[in-house]
Amino acid sequence: MSTVAPPHPLLDRFTSVRALTDTLTATLSAEDQTPQSMTAASPVKWHRAHVTWFFEEFILWAQPGYAVYDDTYRYLFNSYYEAVGARHPRPDRGLVTRPGIDDITRYREHVDAALIDLLQRGDLDESACALIELGCNHEQQHQELILMDLKHLLSRNAFEPVYVDRPIESSGAAESITWRSIATGLQQIGSDGAPAFAYDNEGPRHTVYLTGAEIASRAVTNADWLEFIADDGYRRADLWLSDGWATVNETGWAAPEYWEYNPDDPASSTTFTLSGRRPIVLDEPVLHVSFYEADAYARWAGARLPTEFEWEVAATDSESRRGQLLDPARCHPGPAGQAMVGDVWEWTASAYLPYPGFVPANGAVGEYNGKFMSDQHVLRGASAVTPAGHERITYRNFFPASSRWAFTGLRLAR
Amino acid sequence: MSTVAPPHPLLDRFTSVRALTDTLTATLSAEDQTPQSMTAASPVKWHRAHVTWFFEEFILWAQPGYAVYDDTYRYLFNSYYEAVGARHPRPDRGLVTRPGIDDITRYREHVDAALIDLLQRGDLDESACALIELGCNHEQQHQELILMDLKHLLSRNAFEPVYVDRPIESSGAAESITWRSIATGLQQIGSDGAPAFAYDNEGPRHTVYLTGAEIASRAVTNADWLEFIADDGYRRADLWLSDGWATVNETGWAAPEYWEYNPDDPASSTTFTLSGRRPIVLDEPVLHVSFYEADAYARWAGARLPTEFEWEVAATDSESRRGQLLDPARCHPGPAGQAMVGDVWEWTASAYLPYPGFVPANGAVGEYNGKFMSDQHVLRGASAVTPAGHERITYRNFFPASSRWAFTGLRLAR
Amino acid sequence: MSTVAPPHPLLDRFTSVRALTDTLTATLSAEDQTPQSMTAASPVKWHRAHVTWFFEEFILWAQPGYAVYDDTYRYLFNSYYEAVGARHPRPDRGLVTRPGIDDITRYREHVDAALIDLLQRGDLDESACALIELGCNHEQQHQELILMDLKHLLSRNAFEPVYVDRPIESSGAAESITWRSIATGLQQIGSDGAPAFAYDNEGPRHTVYLTGAEIASRAVTNADWLEFIADDGYRRADLWLSDGWATVNETGWAAPEYWEYNPDDPASSTTFTLSGRRPIVLDEPVLHVSFYEADAYARWAGARLPTEFEWEVAATDSESRRGQLLDPARCHPGPAGQAMVGDVWEWTASAYLPYPGFVPANGAVGEYNGKFMSDQHVLRGASAVTPAGHERITYRNFFPASSRWAFTGLRLAR
Amino acid sequence: MSTVAPPHPLLDRFTSVRALTDTLTATLSAEDQTPQSMTAASPVKWHRAHVTWFFEEFILWAQPGYAVYDDTYRYLFNSYYEAVGARHPRPDRGLVTRPGIDDITRYREHVDAALIDLLQRGDLDESACALIELGCNHEQQHQELILMDLKHLLSRNAFEPVYVDRPIESSGAAESITWRSIATGLQQIGSDGAPAFAYDNEGPRHTVYLTGAEIASRAVTNADWLEFIADDGYRRADLWLSDGWATVNETGWAAPEYWEYNPDDPASSTTFTLSGRRPIVLDEPVLHVSFYEADAYARWAGARLPTEFEWEVAATDSESRRGQLLDPARCHPGPAGQAMVGDVWEWTASAYLPYPGFVPANGAVGEYNGKFMSDQHVLRGASAVTPAGHERITYRNFFPASSRWAFTGLRLAR
Repeated sequence: MSTVAPPHPLLDRFTSVRALTDTLTATLSAEDQTPQSMTAASPVKWHRAHVTWFFEEFILWAQPGYAVYDDTYRYLFNSYYEAVGARHPRPDRGLVTRPGIDDITRYREHVDAALIDLLQRGDLDESACALIELGCNHEQQHQELILMDLKHLLSRNAFEPVYVDRPIESSGAAESITWRSIATGLQQIGSDGAPAFAYDNEGPRHTVYLTGAEIASRAVTNADWLEFIADDGYRRADLWLSDGWATVNETGWAAPEYWEYNPDDPASSTTFTLSGRRPIVLDEPVLHVSFYEADAYARWAGARLPTEFEWEVAATDSESRRGQLLDPARCHPGPAGQAMVGDVWEWTASAYLPYPGFVPANGAVGEYNGKFMSDQHVLRGASAVTPAGHERITYRNFFPASSRWAFTGLRLAR
Repeated sequence: MSTVAPPHPLLDRFTSVRALTDTLTATLSAEDQTPQSMTAASPVKWHRAHVTWFFEEFILWAQPGYAVYDDTYRYLFNSYYEAVGARHPRPDRGLVTRPGIDDITRYREHVDAALIDLLQRGDLDESACALIELGCNHEQQHQELILMDLKHLLSRNAFEPVYVDRPIESSGAAESITWRSIATGLQQIGSDGAPAFAYDNEGPRHTVYLTGAEIASRAVTNADWLEFIADDGYRRADLWLSDGWATVNETGWAAPEYWEYNPDDPASSTTFTLSGRRPIVLDEPVLHVSFYEADAYARWAGARLPTEFEWEVAATDSESRRGQLLDPARCHPGPAGQAMVGDVWEWTASAYLPYPGFVPANGAVGEYNGKFMSDQHVLRGASAVTPAGHERITYRNFFPASSRWAFTGLRLAR
Repeated sequence: MSTVAPPHPLLDRFTSVRALTDTLTATLSAEDQTPQSMTAASPVKWHRAHVTWFFEEFILWAQPGYAVYDDTYRYLFNSYYEAVGARHPRPDRGLVTRPGIDDITRYREHVDAALIDLLQRGDLDESACALIELGCNHEQQHQELILMDLKHLLSRNAFEPVYVDRPIESSGAAESITWRSIATGLQQIGSDGAPAFAYDNEGPRHTVYLTGAEIASRAVTNADWLEFIADDGYRRADLWLSDGWATVNETGWAAPEYWEYNPDDPASSTTFTLSGRRPIVLDEPVLHVSFYEADAYARWAGARLPTEFEWEVAATDSESRRGQLLDPARCHPGPAGQAMVGDVWEWTASAYLPYPGFVPANGAVGEYNGKFMSDQHVLRGASAVTPAGHERITYRNFFPASSRWAFTGLRLAR
Repeated sequence: MSTVAPPHPLLDRFTSVRALTDTLTATLSAEDQTPQSMTAASPVKWHRAHVTWFFEEFILWAQPGYAVYDDTYRYLFNSYYEAVGARHPRPDRGLVTRPGIDDITRYREHVDAALIDLLQRGDLDESACALIELGCNHEQQHQELILMDLKHLLSRNAFEPVYVDRPIESSGAAESITWRSIATGLQQIGSDGAPAFAYDNEGPRHTVYLTGAEIASRAVTNADWLEFIADDGYRRADLWLSDGWATVNETGWAAPEYWEYNPDDPASSTTFTLSGRRPIVLDEPVLHVSFYEADAYARWAGARLPTEFEWEVAATDSESRRGQLLDPARCHPGPAGQAMVGDVWEWTASAYLPYPGFVPANGAVGEYNGKFMSDQHVLRGASAVTPAGHERITYRNFFPASSRWAFTGLRLAR
């Protein structure tokens, strides 16, 4: 009597991750999916193809008998993997009119079918499984990027379009900040990727010595930020790092990205959201501030940013609590609460550097994280556009100091 | 017994011009119509909307009872008319995902209906007629821009797409150049816009004194250009204007735009066309050279470029002959022949300056031409993507010296 | 009985030109002579060496037995002569600390001695004489450049130094403009360089047809310009060429270069001069305006700029009159008078293009003028820092449309 | 019987520091002292004035009865102290022709006299003493900057001038690297500025936990670097951080700054030094490499850069050994030896961040270090142009990752 192997447990994981990408992009027209609004961002259809390319490049191509879908796609949808070969120039991703969105749907279906077939055979080795899990995490990361990049693109549109018709919420004031202690002494930091998945940059798990500190019970809110603005926070050089002050003067920043600040009536200021232009909600965490702004705010508040180690120790104590994670029906945080994971990425005082003993993964996927370890700043937590299941206490997000288009905010330490 | 006024003679003109735009863009996907491949170019869908806006802004809004289609369109699709008011930043035209191409089709239909209604009433005053004729010419000019900009965009695509599936033509060598005399003495130049339409910059018709010259019987061909390259034309500073030489060194130009020049076998060089990548055809006029290159070539050939006055006098003698004008089934010139109008725009030695007594048209349309009269170079003739009926002997086209994306070539004088 | 040939008549010319350079730079310290305040300008000591290099390169090196002074000087002090070979990058002229100013004095003395020896021998051929005359004109041109560049450099100094201690002059109002007729018909323009010297770009002398016009009796004054500013001249797009308006918006121009315009009390505005910061004198010609500003002013005044041909015809009628030419004790124009040559260079409506039949001089000196004939604008007349004897009715000065550091103004035509 | 208070012990310190600046700049002409060869560098005469301004601004102005030397100097010679007020734009420091070098000498003498008078009175409070000590350290730091900036400036000179006529040394091969252990466990890092002076950024002294490591016994040498080049070190993307690889491609780096690498005969390569162009000496430490290059080299060598904490612990063990510090007669390191302080600044793996509990100094001098704590990389040790007495084990030097004009090299860890 013959037996059929049960499908691989990764099958559900894979299909549900792929389905979420389809859900997030289903209502976007070909026009919406094509442009690139700045070099750091990518077109939606490019994201849809690139995450597919990742599975094809790193898993399918190693499979006996797999036929390449299209050599030119390999060139077009490689992001930055030098080991894979030449690739389309990043600033020109918005010029790729062909393949169109339907071609990319077919490409996704082709790769889905091949992956599902592979997973249904059920005999994958550990390395292939690890790469599929990596590919799922990679696609989740791009789900967040899709929403970040889409928000940036739509914000440049004169119609200020609504992507998701979230009802306007009203709320009262945020609760006052209380301070939680972080003990002096040795702590274990990071993850070795087991039992649960982690990126290579989250390990090795290692020891650090912490000098005692306190960390705020909630993130800085829009109400807090309005006070900073009202107190000339953007006009006082003494509050800023030198590079930050130079950036303020070059860019004219006077409020977070997407804000229309009304100096005559600050409470009537608005911000662009994925639900169009909306009033500033006072008790929501402030969003779309750069590291420079976060650092200046902390100095103004007589505090500082936590290091990523302090943050991780504090977050471990409240691990079960989650703020808002990605809900396709809202894509926006709720009021700032007690959770440290969700709502908004939090800038830390830490530079993005390798942990002691860090070794990048073997092969081209080793380029995923390690080669960016200079002049970037670590953010911890997760945001209201981070897919549920992708967030981790040990997760190290990173951006340059002047970036503002991620869903970034901050939490004070002292 | 009541009589119905016959429709205005401009009605046919208007509907056929509008129809050609639809024909040219019918096969282009939403993705193809959305991006802007450089600041000087515009998205296809922007062109389709802008030419429509022109009719709405300058003709319909003056009509009693006309209701504005959409205030934001007025902002989005104004190109450069300061008198009309604020407008969307030119470098961001490729970010306008909404309105989409179907919205723009509806906008075109709305304005068409209103214009046709107006023309069917048949009682338009002279000024309105002149503006409608201007609008038709304007749209024809943008039909050429659509094809120029589309060619540039598609050339950046890794697939090198085919817009029109023109068969590859073979041909022998171009006939040798013969020289036609231009007499010394006074000549009348330009047009006052009557009886036939002309732009304001083509007048007033006026007298110039020409020193005798000779002009070549045909345009410079690809075969000619291969000789220039082979003789180190792009590497000899003595052939170039100072700004041209600086441009060569900054850009690395070593052949016309879109060429892939093969130094080991020049005859096997290719160029990108609206029919995809094709071999260089030796007896076609060279295309996509800048003023700097045209000027350097002429110096290399022991000749010079004609002035626009010499050109106009010479062209008047051969007025009935036309080279290739826009044929949607080819969009590419044939072999260089005796005609001076059609095939390729010809750089002249003349700067784009006002004729004696030039006065811009009244109102915002006065910005159409006059405000660009500095640091541009006059081209004469017409190209294989100029709509038939739009070409004129007195037509003054103009581009900056380093522009190469128009269908530009040259003819020698001495 | 032996006879000694009398010294060549060029000897006095040569020595007096060289002496004026020494006079102009005698009071400038090594520090003053070293920096380059923008790429378009050069250090004073570079000018002193470059004009010397010109004599060495184009005259002495052809002389039998002449020994090169220093090979590196040949590299350092070549300005833009491609035919001569590689040269020091233009933007780095301010980094040439060695040779120092005393080394350059020695270089000047060496070349002077060799030239004087050559001229005293008295047997120069016509070609060598022409080159020496060219070298003298070249040095005179650089005398003006020295003062332009020095003014620009000193204007950037926080002390606003005084180069020449000119007393402050007071004056009443300029006389009203009257209009002089320029007849319709054929006119002869330009010079063939005989009997008096002219640059190659001033010829060949040739015929042009002029449509009748009128030209103003005096240049536009500071009082006139204050009216233009007061009437929002810098804020009305309709007055400006498109490129000019873009330049105004990029640069924030709201008054001529070097002005400190006081909007609350325009009459108390000041300007930086070679005598330090001084009040605006109402009846002096306006100085340091760009072509764009000159063109916008003319449009505002209901007039236009004259063509260079109209200007030359009008100036020929008043040839004997001269405004202020270079007086080392003032370096600044007096009140605007009837003369067309002197006081201030006048922007014309003409692009800088070759005259019919223009052929550059043979050899490397052919690069002197011809290779700049694109995208520059012709100025006529001469300024208060043009050395006497260097001015000519047929002289064609030229600068890009946005240049303001030459002593540039305008005169109206209509 | 009256007693005269003995002069303050800082008097000798002050006068000897000031004298060294004079010694280093005595042979430099006014021309040498005036230009600014890049925005990051400053003119020699600006350094001489700025260090003087520092004493005047932070010490003398607080003294009763002190008369300001010149208000404009306050504006010109403030470097980056926002709290002090407006200042001359940094990129324009090379345009400050006045004051000249003699004026600056007089300014130095004036401030010297006032400081010496103050110190001879002998009754300074602790805060003033601390500021004078800070001013001495500041001037020592600028002595190194003077030599760095001078080297950069002279390297751009076509004559490749000799600043100091150091004899060419020959040497054999460097000794092989041996590896010294750094123990696992807690270590004390930094200085609280007592008993000996330290900058605020060196403290607070605090605990870190180190994972055991090994550090190389000597710096990477020129011989080592030639192997890296020969093994295509500059052409292998896999060796580089992403930003580093982008920098290599933008700049064309293929060897350290100042090298003329001869690919046909690497041993005959040369480098520009303060003694002019000299052959590469194989056993000298490599100089003028960026952080990106140091990091790539380490990866190529199968090692890594040490953290600043590992470095400090290792250096403490060899504290008494010094490499070459500033000798005005050589200004260049000798062969790489066992010392960790001297010869060459060593890039570490550490980002320049505040130590736990860091608080900037009070007042404007708080801007000295703290505001630069983002996107800079820590270097440890000291170089052959660091004045003796200025070096410290706890010293934290810092530069952006792409900087190469400091005397920078590296040491491996693993």
